[in-house]
Amino acid sequence: MISSYTKELVEKSSEIRKMFEEGKKLAEKIGKENVFDFSLGNPSVAPPAKVGEAIKDIIDKEAPGFVHGYMANAGHPQVREAIADDLNKRFGTDFDGTDLIMTVGAAGGLNIMMRTLLDPGDEVIVFAPFFGEYRNYIRNFGGNIVVVPADFEDLKLNLKALPDLISEKTKAVIINNPNNPSGVVYGEEEIKELGSILSSAEERIGHPIYVISDEPYRELVYDGVTVPFVTKCIKNSIVAYSYSKSLSLPGERIGYVAIPKQIDDHDAVRDGAIAANRVLGFVNAPSLMQLAIQECIGEKTDVEAYDRNRKLLYNGLVDIGFECIKPQGAFYILLKSPDKDEKVFTETAKNHGILTVAGTSFGCPGFVRIAYCVSEDTIRRALPGFKEVALELGVKKD
Amino acid sequence: MISSYTKELVEKSSEIRKMFEEGKKLAEKIGKENVFDFSLGNPSVAPPAKVGEAIKDIIDKEAPGFVHGYMANAGHPQVREAIADDLNKRFGTDFDGTDLIMTVGAAGGLNIMMRTLLDPGDEVIVFAPFFGEYRNYIRNFGGNIVVVPADFEDLKLNLKALPDLISEKTKAVIINNPNNPSGVVYGEEEIKELGSILSSAEERIGHPIYVISDEPYRELVYDGVTVPFVTKCIKNSIVAYSYSKSLSLPGERIGYVAIPKQIDDHDAVRDGAIAANRVLGFVNAPSLMQLAIQECIGEKTDVEAYDRNRKLLYNGLVDIGFECIKPQGAFYILLKSPDKDEKVFTETAKNHGILTVAGTSFGCPGFVRIAYCVSEDTIRRALPGFKEVALELGVKKD
Repeated sequence: MISSYTKELVEKSSEIRKMFEEGKKLAEKIGKENVFDFSLGNPSVAPPAKVGEAIKDIIDKEAPGFVHGYMANAGHPQVREAIADDLNKRFGTDFDGTDLIMTVGAAGGLNIMMRTLLDPGDEVIVFAPFFGEYRNYIRNFGGNIVVVPADFEDLKLNLKALPDLISEKTKAVIINNPNNPSGVVYGEEEIKELGSILSSAEERIGHPIYVISDEPYRELVYDGVTVPFVTKCIKNSIVAYSYSKSLSLPGERIGYVAIPKQIDDHDAVRDGAIAANRVLGFVNAPSLMQLAIQECIGEKTDVEAYDRNRKLLYNGLVDIGFECIKPQGAFYILLKSPDKDEKVFTETAKNHGILTVAGTSFGCPGFVRIAYCVSEDTIRRALPGFKEVALELGVKKD
Repeated sequence: MISSYTKELVEKSSEIRKMFEEGKKLAEKIGKENVFDFSLGNPSVAPPAKVGEAIKDIIDKEAPGFVHGYMANAGHPQVREAIADDLNKRFGTDFDGTDLIMTVGAAGGLNIMMRTLLDPGDEVIVFAPFFGEYRNYIRNFGGNIVVVPADFEDLKLNLKALPDLISEKTKAVIINNPNNPSGVVYGEEEIKELGSILSSAEERIGHPIYVISDEPYRELVYDGVTVPFVTKCIKNSIVAYSYSKSLSLPGERIGYVAIPKQIDDHDAVRDGAIAANRVLGFVNAPSLMQLAIQECIGEKTDVEAYDRNRKLLYNGLVDIGFECIKPQGAFYILLKSPDKDEKVFTETAKNHGILTVAGTSFGCPGFVRIAYCVSEDTIRRALPGFKEVALELGVKKD
């Protein structure tokens, strides 16, 4: 007697759970040390030591009623101001604290934006490949997802296909920069072009289309690549950020949405998002963790470690003969399955103790996502297995 | 261009915000020390010292990747098992860890249950007076609220009015025990009668009706009253719990839902709720706080302090001549407005620096909610103001 929405959700979720259970069985069968789990986006780098120190310090010095108590639904004002100042310094923006809402991670931020913007039947556009949960965030409130098919040339934003997919029901576009699962970073030029296509469409359909940029991987970039700041490129744009990856705090559920003053109906959107944060049951982002974040502005994760993993795995896979999208950010590699049906790859890999995720969940069939937020040793020891998978699937080095 | 749902939400929310802003202006005008804020349910008792000690201890002893990392969406297994064991010991239940889902407070728990159970157009029954946010939690997912009018005799569950309000669309009933705003505790007999009415209805309509009991105030009871454990009284019942009030951690957003094995479709409901916890963007309850809760099982807030406040305020108000519902639990008193329109009371009280909340927001017009989670001194100094309000409204001691 659960809802039809939830029934379908659980059926789909259980496919992933099944894989994990098979992974566990695999560990029993061939030994835990012979299972190589590349399926999860759980940071392998520990959080900066400063996080723990800040937490202990706050508990020692501040009144517990303040540390653990209610505050405004948007979050502690001083935390929001500190983050706004930091954004302004780094990106030349002009946020103030009232433009920010502290959220339960970027997932919480995306949900409150969907709750704020969507009436049942409204449409939200996403670009394949995309983080599969967007589908659920949109459907939570009766919205419909509209997928722009991937441009398999380079997996950049497929802007040629966009205009025909915009309708009067289009309320928002979600982008993810750097992208999960591809590791691609969208550049300033294409973000600006996206903005200009949307701005023409807004005139045509007579209402704003908000770009919501999901940016938990902003700081995880390589080869000197920079991620353009979306609100500098597109008028009606909002950032959903999380400290899950940049400070390795995924279990703490802490992030924010930044809603710049320049957007249409700024106050209505901002106040709507604050109310949505309250009524969806978040109420506010966890208090102690908000206060700790304020003390950790400027702290950085060990990007070098992820970069070493990236090079080791990418070069290893290419040497073996696989085709891969070379990631510029995040900690995922998208590998082109030698068989059109990527499940042939994931199943063969599993037989060698290697767990990966089929691209279909990311709107990207024929590809496989490999998360390299693991130890270097795991990659090193898994490469011979990948080689055997290549042999079995008839992959040859050119 | 925000959704019509959110637009209405913000308009209604701003009424409350307006009150707070007026409260601030009042403080500027007559001095902060002359403003008596009885409007908020923010615990006045500090959290037990053990909470801070546990947090520091966990950070010192455990690996940071574990403390702050992802875990199963339902929460840390060892935390859920420890809570299940404690419930079983205290209430004679037979939960195991897999029956519990750690949630972002009870508000998060109620939202995931609504997401799990409701298709658009489904109905959820609540008993007036009720916590006004239930209205939003239900509407978040297209559900309709059905309000059982209050029985003003004693503000117990109005079971006589219930059967006619059950329809084929009824999916759930939310109760709140002890009740916010009335402070009433529903007894074992009436909970069992509720169960028997629902069980007849279930046979008639052919599907389960789940009772979701919102119990953040379970431990805040006075005069030796006990709160019956709902799953021992009603087969299809689920508990939504929060540590916000019992450990004074409202800003940390930590609680759980307990879904007993006895309910119809247990696994579907449990797995649905876990998936809902994920897709609504909670992902999981904050990790460090889950681990701290495990160390604080058995810790208690200072119920005596709230009881002293309760007696001081209740006796004071009754001595003045006001009619009040004598609370047995939580930290609210419901006062019957001398004028049928309770805004006459709230406005008059505001002129004396006293902030209270109109009962209309709780489905209880003609009443005013007074939150006594304040300092004893605040109550003592506010009583002369209440007396002047009584004089102005023509209230006389019998």
